[in-house]
Amino acid sequence: MNKTKVGVVGATGYTGEELIKILSKHPNVEVTYVSGKEDRDEKIQDIFPYLMGMLDLPCKAFSLDEALEKTDLIFLALPHTVSMQTAPAFLKAGKKVIDVSADYRLQDTKAYEKFYKVPHTDTANLKHAVYGIPELHRKEIQKATLLANPGCYPTGATLGLAPGLKAGVFDSGSIQIDAKSGVTGAGRKASKDLLFSEVNESLKAYKLFEHQHVPEIDQELTKIAGAPVSVIFVPHLLPINRGILSTIYVKLTKKITTDELLAVYKKFYAGEPFVKVYDGGKLPEIKNVAHTNFCDIGLKVNEEKGLAVIVTVIDNLGKGAAGQAVQNMNLMCGLNETSGL
Amino acid sequence: MNKTKVGVVGATGYTGEELIKILSKHPNVEVTYVSGKEDRDEKIQDIFPYLMGMLDLPCKAFSLDEALEKTDLIFLALPHTVSMQTAPAFLKAGKKVIDVSADYRLQDTKAYEKFYKVPHTDTANLKHAVYGIPELHRKEIQKATLLANPGCYPTGATLGLAPGLKAGVFDSGSIQIDAKSGVTGAGRKASKDLLFSEVNESLKAYKLFEHQHVPEIDQELTKIAGAPVSVIFVPHLLPINRGILSTIYVKLTKKITTDELLAVYKKFYAGEPFVKVYDGGKLPEIKNVAHTNFCDIGLKVNEEKGLAVIVTVIDNLGKGAAGQAVQNMNLMCGLNETSGL
Amino acid sequence: MNKTKVGVVGATGYTGEELIKILSKHPNVEVTYVSGKEDRDEKIQDIFPYLMGMLDLPCKAFSLDEALEKTDLIFLALPHTVSMQTAPAFLKAGKKVIDVSADYRLQDTKAYEKFYKVPHTDTANLKHAVYGIPELHRKEIQKATLLANPGCYPTGATLGLAPGLKAGVFDSGSIQIDAKSGVTGAGRKASKDLLFSEVNESLKAYKLFEHQHVPEIDQELTKIAGAPVSVIFVPHLLPINRGILSTIYVKLTKKITTDELLAVYKKFYAGEPFVKVYDGGKLPEIKNVAHTNFCDIGLKVNEEKGLAVIVTVIDNLGKGAAGQAVQNMNLMCGLNETSGL
Amino acid sequence: MNKTKVGVVGATGYTGEELIKILSKHPNVEVTYVSGKEDRDEKIQDIFPYLMGMLDLPCKAFSLDEALEKTDLIFLALPHTVSMQTAPAFLKAGKKVIDVSADYRLQDTKAYEKFYKVPHTDTANLKHAVYGIPELHRKEIQKATLLANPGCYPTGATLGLAPGLKAGVFDSGSIQIDAKSGVTGAGRKASKDLLFSEVNESLKAYKLFEHQHVPEIDQELTKIAGAPVSVIFVPHLLPINRGILSTIYVKLTKKITTDELLAVYKKFYAGEPFVKVYDGGKLPEIKNVAHTNFCDIGLKVNEEKGLAVIVTVIDNLGKGAAGQAVQNMNLMCGLNETSGL
Repeated sequence: MNKTKVGVVGATGYTGEELIKILSKHPNVEVTYVSGKEDRDEKIQDIFPYLMGMLDLPCKAFSLDEALEKTDLIFLALPHTVSMQTAPAFLKAGKKVIDVSADYRLQDTKAYEKFYKVPHTDTANLKHAVYGIPELHRKEIQKATLLANPGCYPTGATLGLAPGLKAGVFDSGSIQIDAKSGVTGAGRKASKDLLFSEVNESLKAYKLFEHQHVPEIDQELTKIAGAPVSVIFVPHLLPINRGILSTIYVKLTKKITTDELLAVYKKFYAGEPFVKVYDGGKLPEIKNVAHTNFCDIGLKVNEEKGLAVIVTVIDNLGKGAAGQAVQNMNLMCGLNETSGL
Repeated sequence: MNKTKVGVVGATGYTGEELIKILSKHPNVEVTYVSGKEDRDEKIQDIFPYLMGMLDLPCKAFSLDEALEKTDLIFLALPHTVSMQTAPAFLKAGKKVIDVSADYRLQDTKAYEKFYKVPHTDTANLKHAVYGIPELHRKEIQKATLLANPGCYPTGATLGLAPGLKAGVFDSGSIQIDAKSGVTGAGRKASKDLLFSEVNESLKAYKLFEHQHVPEIDQELTKIAGAPVSVIFVPHLLPINRGILSTIYVKLTKKITTDELLAVYKKFYAGEPFVKVYDGGKLPEIKNVAHTNFCDIGLKVNEEKGLAVIVTVIDNLGKGAAGQAVQNMNLMCGLNETSGL
Repeated sequence: MNKTKVGVVGATGYTGEELIKILSKHPNVEVTYVSGKEDRDEKIQDIFPYLMGMLDLPCKAFSLDEALEKTDLIFLALPHTVSMQTAPAFLKAGKKVIDVSADYRLQDTKAYEKFYKVPHTDTANLKHAVYGIPELHRKEIQKATLLANPGCYPTGATLGLAPGLKAGVFDSGSIQIDAKSGVTGAGRKASKDLLFSEVNESLKAYKLFEHQHVPEIDQELTKIAGAPVSVIFVPHLLPINRGILSTIYVKLTKKITTDELLAVYKKFYAGEPFVKVYDGGKLPEIKNVAHTNFCDIGLKVNEEKGLAVIVTVIDNLGKGAAGQAVQNMNLMCGLNETSGL
Repeated sequence: MNKTKVGVVGATGYTGEELIKILSKHPNVEVTYVSGKEDRDEKIQDIFPYLMGMLDLPCKAFSLDEALEKTDLIFLALPHTVSMQTAPAFLKAGKKVIDVSADYRLQDTKAYEKFYKVPHTDTANLKHAVYGIPELHRKEIQKATLLANPGCYPTGATLGLAPGLKAGVFDSGSIQIDAKSGVTGAGRKASKDLLFSEVNESLKAYKLFEHQHVPEIDQELTKIAGAPVSVIFVPHLLPINRGILSTIYVKLTKKITTDELLAVYKKFYAGEPFVKVYDGGKLPEIKNVAHTNFCDIGLKVNEEKGLAVIVTVIDNLGKGAAGQAVQNMNLMCGLNETSGL
């Protein structure tokens, strides 16, 4: 079988790098194009030496013509606002696009403008964009040509809440998400706040109530609940490289035990290759999913207080970004969903 | 002036070590006795080489006679249940006792038995024990002979909630505390779960709803609120050595802005040497208080949702244990409250 | 094709766990038996939750009969001295054995006794044991039934020195190895010295001149040099999970430039799938090989002082233990050498 | 007694910050001036919140007039080349200057130009600059007006070698220093190479043979040995915040035991308040000196190979920068040498 030719635009960020790491070992695709913002004439295997012997490609500034010529499907690992300037040309040429930025995630362009501070400039394609959490939208993803790959926090939060919300067991007005993310989630940008000595041996909360992932979480939970959901979301910067743990607090609409709620979750995710629900009130740790595409979920009901606490863990570069993007690619290309993951 | 002679029983744990570190530089006291559980004939400066030249004392198994003879005030840095077997003899001999274990913190012996799995065996002294958060109980502490030094989590949580609860601005039935602690909080015990490679690059929640600090937090908040408080408390194990960050979610009983709520906090803690309230919605990070006796507090009101999020940080070995114990000692001995800190 | 049935004895240590992680995804083998020292009736996927859905096996105390019955090839991830009591029965039954302990690495039983403090009890099999660095002993490995999987430090040191020693460029009497290892190298044992708070934010040298890997390094380098080699070896404990960086200092026997010495290395390792030699004096970092089976090598000559410094990095659980063990298994079983890696 | 008025130019780097932290608690000095490169009108306690209540000063761009007016002694925590443009005006005005940059450390201006890539522009003052390791140059320091505060690596290396070199026990032509430094040693500059996710869980060697501290180490060791010394120096970047461990390899000129060599060291450092020599071959760890001004030293002789390995640890911001600068200030101002430390 011919291998699908894929390209990665924005290859030198953490998500771009992780995409290349996964794709260069993927049995059904061939990486035929990469670009970074460097204008030096470097090879990708010189930037990431562990690629030596696995991939031999130049990594130059982005060239649309070359990318169009060499690829069937393109991953855009670009900053938001840049993606929506780049995607249209690929779509017009009949290429499949997986955008890992935020540009095609929010159907509400006012919310986009409020949180990303610029108007949306590609509303035409936005309408057809499919939000890529396979566990919730598998069928649409299989038919998608423009895939909006979800944010890392929204993935962990949405997978943690979907079963209970869908079952009507959760009070959708009471959701509080206390999330903790590793530092690669902030990207590979030279910022003093992200220096080793600033982050190490510390912890901080940031962007209280104002994080750009809030409208994305609200949008997805609203779809599931069938009624407007507006969450309290507090992210924290954790001194580790990879992983997000979300501690989710939600009021219950009726009496239910831990085991009964776990049964709801197990049924919801039955057969899912990348979601694990833990038995008996056990809770997942970040190390259980680091360097994988899994989302692990544990929970515990406090019957006296009528509240559940759900804990989900993902690798922010795995299920929270590149892993999920490849899972989506597999679905869009008719490949085995777990291929290469 | 004669220096107060102090001893530390349980000197080889993290809190015992930190006590010795602080006390050996304290201008008004002299460390005259230390003991550990080692029965080897070691010197304390051989166990902790940075004490060389500062302290020269044997560190043997505990001897009551020697401790009584050599000290005016004793710190018990012992496991719970051991403290309440050890304290009575010191109290009987007229010595002051600062217990950093949990044995004299809970006035409700049923709660003690439920969470610590043994009956309380020294209820006589328990009645006179003073709970040692100086910002809340300074006057009682000044007169105390038996001081129950607070737990690390309860210190961060209580200082973060006291002003708003006291002012009646917080719905005392809605308190959720998502706390994250460094690893020294778990003590220096040889446990696989606390190995570097198990904790590093990970995060986990533990003891959901069941942590032994819950009744202690409830006891203190109930005093402040003047009505029964029962919190939701979820602790997490953080891959850092020192520090606790508590993210506290609470519903508001009335409309109030961030600045107005900050004003309540600033007034409450006016003049306090070890509590800092941050301006303008700024939030504290753990590194701001590591290796100090400070508790730093920031907060933000979500007016739309009628909720406040308060973030407090302490060093779990500082304000959360040894630092606060020395602050209490200073008060009990009529010394300058900040001396040595 | 029928899959080879493999077992892992000592599955709950770090090397055992890593073996299972690799083997459970390996396309040509099936994990049919695992045992740990736990006598609880646990399943391996309950101990390591990320195995859920990939492996479903009980993990009980070791049973020779069951292991013999269920496996064609057995990995012994056991403490030294235990391996040499366990291996003979497997060998006698015609099974292939890969021992990741030190028991079959040293042909000199006096050196074994000196460094491991017990006499060797299986000298009969020791004679036929093959030391498993594929880059140096590929042909013997292909025919081996008892494979002594190398120590982590010896792997990094030997691969770093072999080309220059073989070429006669290095003064074999001048070798100094300053090695730095991540904490998993010390095993998953409940020891205070390995607690997070003891290791984190620190660094220490240990076992100066006395580390048990010294005779192993000397044995292998002696083979290569064709004359007795005795190295200076100073290991350090590094606050990371995985990885060893070895900084090797060696005097040169003749004038040679960095590029010329690199050419010697590149020729020596030409075609090797798991060794990378860096160009132009570039040096490898641990992160370049973490979670892989690679050994990356860089070097620089100081012509003025007639000395070379070689830097090698491996993952101590990858090329330094489980990865190399699987590479050896592939060779012993006639599989593709890189299969599953 | 009047307090000495001191200023810190370059207050927002790691060394500047540490200076302020120490000086603001120092009993004999008053911090009266600080400046940073920010031109925002910020207060130093807003930049470093833990200073709230301890220091209340604006932190603006540097103003020579204001600095001259407000201070008796100035710390220059500036990048090299900037210091030598700034120091002359202070010296001319009769102020004492402690320069923590490299500008006044090397008496050989050719070496300066070679390693710092610019010609020296203040050779007049350079002649009178005193190199500030108190254990070696106490008397000159007491009379100094321009103090060149040593580099972090040179401090650990020089203190580790001085006693043996002075005693003629070491072969001065055989010195190899394998040094490992925490990340604050690289300064607080927004560089991708110093991002948390780049440094964490890794280790790398850098600037092999070319580090700018080489000529400084050579200069100081040459003074001690009384003959030209030229060392091999290989620094590594360690994933911790603070601390340097130097593993020093040196050939012995005569037979000597570990205990005999330790006796040489103990005699050399007898009475030194900030140097500790460990007994019996014990080796220091970085955590033993973190957050202090100590240099701890251990060593072990390999009699068979005629070689000693010396291990020294310092806090790179303590004895390696700000701590030693304050120790020097104490000496220059006739204060107690340990005051404030």
